[in-house]
Amino acid sequence: MRAVDIILNKRSGKELSAEEIRFLIQGYTAGEIPDYQVSAWAMAVFFRGMNARETAALTEAMLHSGASMDLGGIRGPFVDKHSTGGVGDKTSLILAPLAASLGIRDPMMSGRALGHTGGTLDKLEAVPGYRTNLSAAEFRAILERDGFAMTGQTKDIVPADRLLYALRDVTGSVESIPLITASILSKKAAEGAEALVLDVKYGSGAFMKDPLDGEKLARSLVDTGTAMGMKIIALLTGMEEPLGNKMGNFLEVEESLDCLEGKGPADLMEVTLELASRMAVLGGKAADAAEGRKICAEALAGGKPRELFLANVKSQGGDPDKLLSLRGGYRSPFKGEIKAARGGFISRIDAYAAGRAGIDLGVGRNRTEDPVSPAAGVEFHRKSGAAVKEGDLLMTVWGKDEDGLKAALPLLAEAVEYSTAAPEARPLVLKEITPK
Amino acid sequence: MRAVDIILNKRSGKELSAEEIRFLIQGYTAGEIPDYQVSAWAMAVFFRGMNARETAALTEAMLHSGASMDLGGIRGPFVDKHSTGGVGDKTSLILAPLAASLGIRDPMMSGRALGHTGGTLDKLEAVPGYRTNLSAAEFRAILERDGFAMTGQTKDIVPADRLLYALRDVTGSVESIPLITASILSKKAAEGAEALVLDVKYGSGAFMKDPLDGEKLARSLVDTGTAMGMKIIALLTGMEEPLGNKMGNFLEVEESLDCLEGKGPADLMEVTLELASRMAVLGGKAADAAEGRKICAEALAGGKPRELFLANVKSQGGDPDKLLSLRGGYRSPFKGEIKAARGGFISRIDAYAAGRAGIDLGVGRNRTEDPVSPAAGVEFHRKSGAAVKEGDLLMTVWGKDEDGLKAALPLLAEAVEYSTAAPEARPLVLKEITPK
Repeated sequence: MRAVDIILNKRSGKELSAEEIRFLIQGYTAGEIPDYQVSAWAMAVFFRGMNARETAALTEAMLHSGASMDLGGIRGPFVDKHSTGGVGDKTSLILAPLAASLGIRDPMMSGRALGHTGGTLDKLEAVPGYRTNLSAAEFRAILERDGFAMTGQTKDIVPADRLLYALRDVTGSVESIPLITASILSKKAAEGAEALVLDVKYGSGAFMKDPLDGEKLARSLVDTGTAMGMKIIALLTGMEEPLGNKMGNFLEVEESLDCLEGKGPADLMEVTLELASRMAVLGGKAADAAEGRKICAEALAGGKPRELFLANVKSQGGDPDKLLSLRGGYRSPFKGEIKAARGGFISRIDAYAAGRAGIDLGVGRNRTEDPVSPAAGVEFHRKSGAAVKEGDLLMTVWGKDEDGLKAALPLLAEAVEYSTAAPEARPLVLKEITPK
Repeated sequence: MRAVDIILNKRSGKELSAEEIRFLIQGYTAGEIPDYQVSAWAMAVFFRGMNARETAALTEAMLHSGASMDLGGIRGPFVDKHSTGGVGDKTSLILAPLAASLGIRDPMMSGRALGHTGGTLDKLEAVPGYRTNLSAAEFRAILERDGFAMTGQTKDIVPADRLLYALRDVTGSVESIPLITASILSKKAAEGAEALVLDVKYGSGAFMKDPLDGEKLARSLVDTGTAMGMKIIALLTGMEEPLGNKMGNFLEVEESLDCLEGKGPADLMEVTLELASRMAVLGGKAADAAEGRKICAEALAGGKPRELFLANVKSQGGDPDKLLSLRGGYRSPFKGEIKAARGGFISRIDAYAAGRAGIDLGVGRNRTEDPVSPAAGVEFHRKSGAAVKEGDLLMTVWGKDEDGLKAALPLLAEAVEYSTAAPEARPLVLKEITPK
């Protein structure tokens, strides 16, 4: 078998066999097939696509490129959630303890902020002392004790994905549905998730701008996951505006605590409960989404999820008392404000523009090696639908430094869109995609 | 400017600017842009194509990636011929001295056999002592004295093409018309050709199997060459059968001499005269193709081209007397025969199959680093249209060794196609493509 023939087969639109796909992924991971062949192949996949069989074979090949988390001996069900990435999206921090409070175990491996989207690991690390580089033994122990554990991907988990994603990023083949599908599902399978709720976002702040593209990705994920024996459901959720009222690393931990205490903002609570209800269904704790929503709301009201969250902070090296004492005050001194440029209604605060401003502020990063700031971010005092007068305070802004703040303020001012009439409400959860 | 953005622009079907194309080619040649970005870009070009402006910009960028042959001080006109490659195609060896006999100068840089197609350099090197690695000074001197010089591409001529072709070869983007166009024309411009006759072949033994694809390539070459200020004409010629009756390195030198002496086979003579007549037209030696054919036929009859050929053999290190004494006898001892498997007519001797057999025999090679044999090859005693009886001798075959001969014989036997009725003659020159 030769890599060039596999490239040519895909280029001409043929279905690749599982053997061809394995040969390519194994050879690449072993350093035997060079980058330049794999990047050309990925571009051919971008143009020609892959069918369900090929996508499943690619996911399996990537999954087996490295180790999997051994959760043997721990009682499940193991249910995780994965989001395709957004702005202000801190649902993972709420969902993991909420699901755990229902008796579900969530073995969560997360990523970091990149580009305009935030990252769960960066948020967690804004809690002083919190460690996201757990060993496999620590991960197992914390998962067993707290019902969930939150860690980064270790080097030996799906090495093919690390290589392939980095390569696609610089060779223009990121936006390929089968490649995205295999990247997400291979990692989720390797972390030990038996069931998965997917939050596939669409809109300006999402990877997929168009809901139809989001739906295609959701369908590919659900079909491929099902073919691999996972229980899986996807929700297509809107990402036109930042989710919730806070964007920033420590700021989002704060808002997660607000939600765990039953006082989170409505949009964030709605998306969280919709996702949580599906985790409850897939974990066998609820018969349907309606029952799932009910038991999740009850669980939050009972206070157990908040308790488990603080227990996890302690388990992973943080100090829950310190966290609570920092609440409301852990802010960078480089502070600014955005005021309404005119009266009327806010029709949208563009999530993409807010996320781009977040890079300047130090919430996110352009390159994986850049540091982020825990104490930077934005608090949105008004969002779409709000009636405003010229000069009303819309946002409080904290930058990692003066330059970052200065660069972000005009971007944030431009992110605000106004209308003269009250705008129609956007749906937050557009659609549910289930196995066929 | 970033290479990944150039890839993304091409991927999305945008026209690349000349600046973007230059950035990519210069960066690649300088080793600043890695292989894996260029291979992904080439695959995107395969799928999206390039318009005439982009193709011309790419050709210019490649041309300027290295040195050009300095022909200053030598009297032109400088007219060359380029073929897209075939089996038994030795027209270069006849055309160069023929054009020179008309007062045209042909600065010919040629390539080597690869895959099923033969290479001019390998044929010339079958003449004992003949050197194809001329220095620039030698090239100039021989071109000036003999009217033509035949050499390989030096390292400093169009280095971008050497890099890019080797990369495309292993990453599945060889078959891209704009990339082929830029590869051919950048080299021809660098060697100093002001005018160019292109022999774009189609059929089983050609790179383009379908005449429509061949015509597209011819059109791209003519339009791009014209945009670059070259005089240029393309002929679309058939390559269903080997051209002429001899395939092999020394065997083809022999047959070229036959043609130069007016006793070449009809198909080879026809293609040669058609190409030569266009060289005469582009070089200002004939008003039209008909006049060109006439003066070329007269020149051959006068013997001057043969004289110039032998003079060039001497100029480039060979011994004309030795060449003439080897004629008819320089054959490998590993000899076989192909006889007619049945009676009837020969409808085709498949050029591709013959070329593939040539690799086993040692006429051609699979990889650029493999050696070829001067004394191997095939003499075709019958070609399409011939009436045969079962057992008639169709080919005499010489292999570089016993194993190569054994491997080639069944391929050659299978290359022969029979019919019960006399087959219709195939056109040898299908079409002429001229500037719009």
